[in-house]
Amino acid sequence: MSEPILFYFDFTSPYSYIVSEKIDALAEARGRQVRWRPILLGAVFKALGTVSLVKQPDKAGYSLRDFLRSARFHGLPYVHPADFPVSTVAPARAYYWLHGRDCALARRFAHGVFRAAFVDGRDISTAATTLDVAVAAGADRADIEAGMNDPAIKDRLRAETDAALAAGVFGAPWLVVDGEPFWGADRLPQVEHWLRTGGF
Amino acid sequence: MSEPILFYFDFTSPYSYIVSEKIDALAEARGRQVRWRPILLGAVFKALGTVSLVKQPDKAGYSLRDFLRSARFHGLPYVHPADFPVSTVAPARAYYWLHGRDCALARRFAHGVFRAAFVDGRDISTAATTLDVAVAAGADRADIEAGMNDPAIKDRLRAETDAALAAGVFGAPWLVVDGEPFWGADRLPQVEHWLRTGGF
Repeated sequence: MSEPILFYFDFTSPYSYIVSEKIDALAEARGRQVRWRPILLGAVFKALGTVSLVKQPDKAGYSLRDFLRSARFHGLPYVHPADFPVSTVAPARAYYWLHGRDCALARRFAHGVFRAAFVDGRDISTAATTLDVAVAAGADRADIEAGMNDPAIKDRLRAETDAALAAGVFGAPWLVVDGEPFWGADRLPQVEHWLRTGGF
Repeated sequence: MSEPILFYFDFTSPYSYIVSEKIDALAEARGRQVRWRPILLGAVFKALGTVSLVKQPDKAGYSLRDFLRSARFHGLPYVHPADFPVSTVAPARAYYWLHGRDCALARRFAHGVFRAAFVDGRDISTAATTLDVAVAAGADRADIEAGMNDPAIKDRLRAETDAALAAGVFGAPWLVVDGEPFWGADRLPQVEHWLRTGGF
């Protein structure tokens, strides 16, 4: 079995949402697994001194148009959240807590968070939304509440974000296939071609 | 016949080179023509206070890797020019001069400039390269030499760049189909889908 695909993302990233809906099936068709790794893109931007597309006045209008159009292109529902972008510390910590307990549950939770943001337009920055989504995915409310405040989980999220930075990640979604980095949902065709051909 | 597709580009932009090799056939298959419009991306960046990807230290390494890989993905030869990015005032002026005389000649010249840069790795910023490429495309050397220094042509290039800025262009390649803007070679699948479906 070949190496798993690494998928770095931030839950508030629209293009990460698109990849989240596509990457597992794409990988499975080629006998690959995917390691999902939420990171804090805000911390990445801060470390690099860069700014989100949506916070650049000349690019914000185009970006919103492209989020909506790209979702339609991929056949996905898309509602642009009223608060955007938001902090994703709460769902990212919850993800790593759940992941330590049950990988499949963590995956369902991650889909739930993305869809809460981009299908239902909910504010995913709050502990309340995180808890709702976790419970809907099958988690125990008291357990996940404790987990989100676990110091080891806080450290884990920081460490994953630092590891992404150290690996050269400067945006999200970011996929790594056989050591090859791919930035952006628009690189999915190249990822598919890479998996099909064994690299090109 | 539907409206022509607008194609804004800078001759020193690798992703513009990719689109230049694809867009005419893609448009023709759907009964569309393409209006090629070289602009000075440096002037656009200066007006907007932004910086080329390749001049951002954290993104430069990935970008070069992606230029090479994206060209391979599209089945195109790619040599990264030793001097990069370069000023494209000379070939852009020559383009508009030739375009005023013979559209087909201007198109051949434009392909020649892109290939001089990205197939042969030549420095396309010089008047000498511009003249060589123009002559190879079928232009008269003395005529094109005079044209590049024509004040009306200098104004034309400035006006096209200003018009692009006014239309919201902040990068290249930039395609406009039925009023819908598409930024980047990676939006070619969306452009194709748009042409096939009449908008989505």
